[in-house]
Amino acid sequence: MNIHRYPENPLITPADVPPSRGDFEVVCAFNAGAAKYGDEIILLMRVAERAIGDDKVARVPILNCDGGSPEIEIREFDRSDASINFGDSRVICTPGRVYLTTLSHLRIARSTDGRRFTVDPKPAIFPDRPSEAFGVEDPRITEIEGMYYVAYKSVSPSGICIGLAVTKDFQKFEKRGIIFCPENMDVCIFPEKVNGRYAALHRPVSGFSGSPNMWIAYSTDLINWGDHHLLLEVRRDGWDAERVGGGLVPIRTDRGWLEIYHASDFVGRYCLGAVLLDPNEPHKVLARGGSPIFAPEAPYETDGFVPNVVFSCGGLVGGDKVSIYYGAADTVIAGADMSLCEILDSLA
Amino acid sequence: MNIHRYPENPLITPADVPPSRGDFEVVCAFNAGAAKYGDEIILLMRVAERAIGDDKVARVPILNCDGGSPEIEIREFDRSDASINFGDSRVICTPGRVYLTTLSHLRIARSTDGRRFTVDPKPAIFPDRPSEAFGVEDPRITEIEGMYYVAYKSVSPSGICIGLAVTKDFQKFEKRGIIFCPENMDVCIFPEKVNGRYAALHRPVSGFSGSPNMWIAYSTDLINWGDHHLLLEVRRDGWDAERVGGGLVPIRTDRGWLEIYHASDFVGRYCLGAVLLDPNEPHKVLARGGSPIFAPEAPYETDGFVPNVVFSCGGLVGGDKVSIYYGAADTVIAGADMSLCEILDSLA
Repeated sequence: MNIHRYPENPLITPADVPPSRGDFEVVCAFNAGAAKYGDEIILLMRVAERAIGDDKVARVPILNCDGGSPEIEIREFDRSDASINFGDSRVICTPGRVYLTTLSHLRIARSTDGRRFTVDPKPAIFPDRPSEAFGVEDPRITEIEGMYYVAYKSVSPSGICIGLAVTKDFQKFEKRGIIFCPENMDVCIFPEKVNGRYAALHRPVSGFSGSPNMWIAYSTDLINWGDHHLLLEVRRDGWDAERVGGGLVPIRTDRGWLEIYHASDFVGRYCLGAVLLDPNEPHKVLARGGSPIFAPEAPYETDGFVPNVVFSCGGLVGGDKVSIYYGAADTVIAGADMSLCEILDSLA
Repeated sequence: MNIHRYPENPLITPADVPPSRGDFEVVCAFNAGAAKYGDEIILLMRVAERAIGDDKVARVPILNCDGGSPEIEIREFDRSDASINFGDSRVICTPGRVYLTTLSHLRIARSTDGRRFTVDPKPAIFPDRPSEAFGVEDPRITEIEGMYYVAYKSVSPSGICIGLAVTKDFQKFEKRGIIFCPENMDVCIFPEKVNGRYAALHRPVSGFSGSPNMWIAYSTDLINWGDHHLLLEVRRDGWDAERVGGGLVPIRTDRGWLEIYHASDFVGRYCLGAVLLDPNEPHKVLARGGSPIFAPEAPYETDGFVPNVVFSCGGLVGGDKVSIYYGAADTVIAGADMSLCEILDSLA
């Protein structure tokens, strides 16, 4: 598979993003939904921030909704406290409770050439309710009839679920509540109705049994979802053995719906893979690639906040070119072009 | 709280239920949805069966859907195999995979007095698809405009989710697919629209963070569900510290929606509790009882397949009388009457 990484990579780094407050620092600018809006290419990226700390204390911003109105609270964790596990850069595990090391919001970056981006000075979607107390993350943008639907992870002590926000201009966003209850993530809404219904990929997690597999659901109104089907399971021992989840919004092709998804193996390496779904009944898999179509190799993909990660929440298709924007090493945003035909042929 | 346990208790035992096959034995007849249908009181109970085994071998029936049509397969587990954990009567934990010790189906028992029941000779709802490979369980029945909607646990290696079946006569049941994806259970659909929408209690489980708490969702068509809200959380250290979930279909009263729910503590004792929800916005809790309204005390509640369990999936209300049918010790079905006013007053 030919991958044309952009020579400008990484396209956006944490240093390019002004923090939302003076006492915050941006740690990661990554996992971005993508959309075309007029002449602009829009990336709606996840920006992970922490309060500026030091070697002794980790300072974590959390949305506190206990009072009347939500307020950012800075919680401090003593790095020398042996009862606290700081081993995973993403989480702080205290006895009885898990915290994220960062609070994420969603920020817009705009471009006309798809390579050079200007980052908006302020957040576009910021956590503002109990279900978002640990942040909002990993948006996918689906354009349907001039409206842009943003499905994003909503993280809180009550779990990870999916919120929906809607915009028509990438200026004002209206939140529409929780569309998938805990635990769920990686929701990719199809760009048009299929057989009279909307469809969405999603990734529930089952405590009792079962791996983090990809499911699909249907809807008549984009708010209420049902008719759930298990769609794509992890495979034993390989690059997609630990978890699979939707990546890009599914792409309609003349062979069916092409989904470029992410998967990780048991050492936490994240790759992208491809699967072809039935054009009229996308809960049926027509073909699945045996190998990843895109694996972390470049230095900005192999080193960072979480090493060896390529993770895409959005791309744009023009003719045979698929422009994939992706979070690299959970730290920066990069871009790469691939050939649609080549991906489809790899599934034949 | 005054509990009038029926002197006929237990009302239905495994011995009253003919197995679905000659080589099966019924281990438990419990957790039953309840409905009035004409002159009959209907219990749609969970019947847990296993293939007849012996001291050396546990024989577990599983629905195998790998071939063209689903078939029951008997899987054998050597009780002397030290790599297998038989410690919990409900599950068999092998390296890498969990199995249930029994396969459950749903069976009807009919009565005219609510005390003496006749069990149908054949199952009403039997597992018949991959998402039900480990069985169908714990139904709640909601009557809406002459149709009876059965929300039931659908258990498989891919997780626990909620299927919907519909009947108008308790003879023919039509399955309508999965309405809540894994992991979810304890779905209780409200008996009428609230503020123009259907509503349902549900109990997702989040892997990342959060306890097994009760949530509520809304729907316009009973198939697709959204607008999820966290409703009722576990409380620290008490009788409802480990998990909470819906029990009976919510009861409309002049003070709001009364929900009689189940909860367990950290040693696995299951009690029933009461909570009052806003009449027009049932995602708002008006009052919650500090103590259980019903705790396991009778011998058939304290001894059995899983000791110290009262767990209700259904009840009937007539005037001030709430007749609660409940699974006792995960083994038998029992009944008890309580006063609606007394329950409501305990929440005042």
